[in-house]
Amino acid sequence: MPERKGQYTVMLSGRPTILGFASVVGKREGEGPLGRGFDMVFEDTTLGEKSWEKAESAMQREAFTRALNKAEISPSQVNYLFAGDLLNQNIASTFGLREFGVPILGQFGACSTMAQTLSLAAIFVDSGAADICGAVTSSHFCSAERQFRFPLEYGGQRPPTAQWTVTGAGSIIVGLGGSGVRIADVTIGYITDLGITDSNNMGAAMAPAAAETIAAYLKDAAAKPDDFDLIVTGDLGSVGSDLLRQLMERKGYPLGGNYTDCGLLIYDRDKQDVHAGGSGCGCSAAVLCSYILGKMGAGELKNVLFIATGALMSPTSTQQGESIPGIAHLVHLVAMEP
Amino acid sequence: MPERKGQYTVMLSGRPTILGFASVVGKREGEGPLGRGFDMVFEDTTLGEKSWEKAESAMQREAFTRALNKAEISPSQVNYLFAGDLLNQNIASTFGLREFGVPILGQFGACSTMAQTLSLAAIFVDSGAADICGAVTSSHFCSAERQFRFPLEYGGQRPPTAQWTVTGAGSIIVGLGGSGVRIADVTIGYITDLGITDSNNMGAAMAPAAAETIAAYLKDAAAKPDDFDLIVTGDLGSVGSDLLRQLMERKGYPLGGNYTDCGLLIYDRDKQDVHAGGSGCGCSAAVLCSYILGKMGAGELKNVLFIATGALMSPTSTQQGESIPGIAHLVHLVAMEP
Repeated sequence: MPERKGQYTVMLSGRPTILGFASVVGKREGEGPLGRGFDMVFEDTTLGEKSWEKAESAMQREAFTRALNKAEISPSQVNYLFAGDLLNQNIASTFGLREFGVPILGQFGACSTMAQTLSLAAIFVDSGAADICGAVTSSHFCSAERQFRFPLEYGGQRPPTAQWTVTGAGSIIVGLGGSGVRIADVTIGYITDLGITDSNNMGAAMAPAAAETIAAYLKDAAAKPDDFDLIVTGDLGSVGSDLLRQLMERKGYPLGGNYTDCGLLIYDRDKQDVHAGGSGCGCSAAVLCSYILGKMGAGELKNVLFIATGALMSPTSTQQGESIPGIAHLVHLVAMEP
Repeated sequence: MPERKGQYTVMLSGRPTILGFASVVGKREGEGPLGRGFDMVFEDTTLGEKSWEKAESAMQREAFTRALNKAEISPSQVNYLFAGDLLNQNIASTFGLREFGVPILGQFGACSTMAQTLSLAAIFVDSGAADICGAVTSSHFCSAERQFRFPLEYGGQRPPTAQWTVTGAGSIIVGLGGSGVRIADVTIGYITDLGITDSNNMGAAMAPAAAETIAAYLKDAAAKPDDFDLIVTGDLGSVGSDLLRQLMERKGYPLGGNYTDCGLLIYDRDKQDVHAGGSGCGCSAAVLCSYILGKMGAGELKNVLFIATGALMSPTSTQQGESIPGIAHLVHLVAMEP
């Protein structure tokens, strides 16, 4: 059963576990350093669909199907799906997951969605509200550029602080009694806004939220950063993760060599032209559902803090002069003893 | 603790209750038949803000603040806020609720958002994951028209099947130990899509989803429609609620005189030019958080099924030829014995 631990954290004492996980990505992500770890790499990032939005939906469908298969679970056994994406009105999730007939609760946390959906799935299973839940999210470079910045055909220039939206999707099936990785704690973040207005510098907008959530968890759990094998943020990229290190130092929780960011892991920034690194819901989802959970399953990582970060803006809010509020949700993952 | 009941329903045995609720609306809604029941009517639907989107945010802030005050709860006592709206990337919620510093889980269920946020708040409280949760949603006629159809300045004609997006917001505070109305059961719906493609006929797109969810609940609870004082859907309007009656008849659960729809209650369709009735997240939110919960508090209604319905589309999905998938979530509300 879930139990409050400190001010912001919920401890999941019923040991909800990850029964299956899968990630699918586009060509560029497949060519990056984690390429071999993904379940599927689509060389054609249209996935044979007629629009980028439909391609993104197809990626969610594929990731969820593969996670189900790996968990040996049928869709009808899943009580709830928590799913979301970056597109207006969550259409990647709606049209990607429509056919499964599973009760669905659409989530919006911008790029924090993988942590948000996994948190809800774990809390529902731990509480008895569900036996099995699914968490799914995605992003697609081409649908995100069209929606948030410029259509690709415009050929806009990107400043060095800009991040590259990952084409990818990840899905996790949560239930009881698995032997792999369990979700031990969850910390849901509040909105943090230090007034960043540059939508080409999302890392800086999200770093303060990540700092607040990590510090809240460490305080609630009476823990310190080097208690963990890995502390990994969602998609702060190079600018945001440098800033996070500074903010955590000031908070009295300096981050060491065990800290990294999914946006830095997914691409080779020297060889791939991605500026400040990867971003998008699909970034942290694909890295979690390949590299991180893979290493946890292999016993190479045992105690991990996964913090996905989101920039809660829309083109309309930016055009109306609003700043970019950030949010971050944390999931504490523990590899179970064999 | 939450317990599964049948295939789709969760029974909340810990008796989570509504500690406070509030609704705020625009001028037209204030002039309708429920006008006296709202906590606040804004004669100026800009709320003094520079954009319709900011006005919608201000309504969420106002509704949440009033619900907190009526519950005699401070924002720092609220563990989680579940909030969402119709705007791209949920900006009405983000910018409306940013200042409260409450951990927030953004929700997207289109016009089903009031039932979705209330369901999650109730499950979290019942499970022990939270002591107190808030649920908030809104819609604004002017921001919705600009985003989903045409800017007001265009002066587009609306067909008779079109509904009128309610300018309004509602908020509910859920905790344990209140003496008013408790949330007894929750049924989360799955996506239902019968191929409606006319975004001026949302009621028809959503009615099949409402029928699926109501029938699922009645089956799980071994109940029949006339066990309830009131069965009220979110915003099917006249076209959709007629269709729902037909669908329920076919399913063997004919709806009687205890059935109505929030989209039919909020306006006087003879005197107010709203075509098929009200719609939008704010429609069911404002009607629930005034008329329905008011009557339950006064002992005039004891046993109510509230089913908010959503059309999970975006202008992009419609332009790309997709149909309009519907969803409906159900909350079973019971007035506690005095």
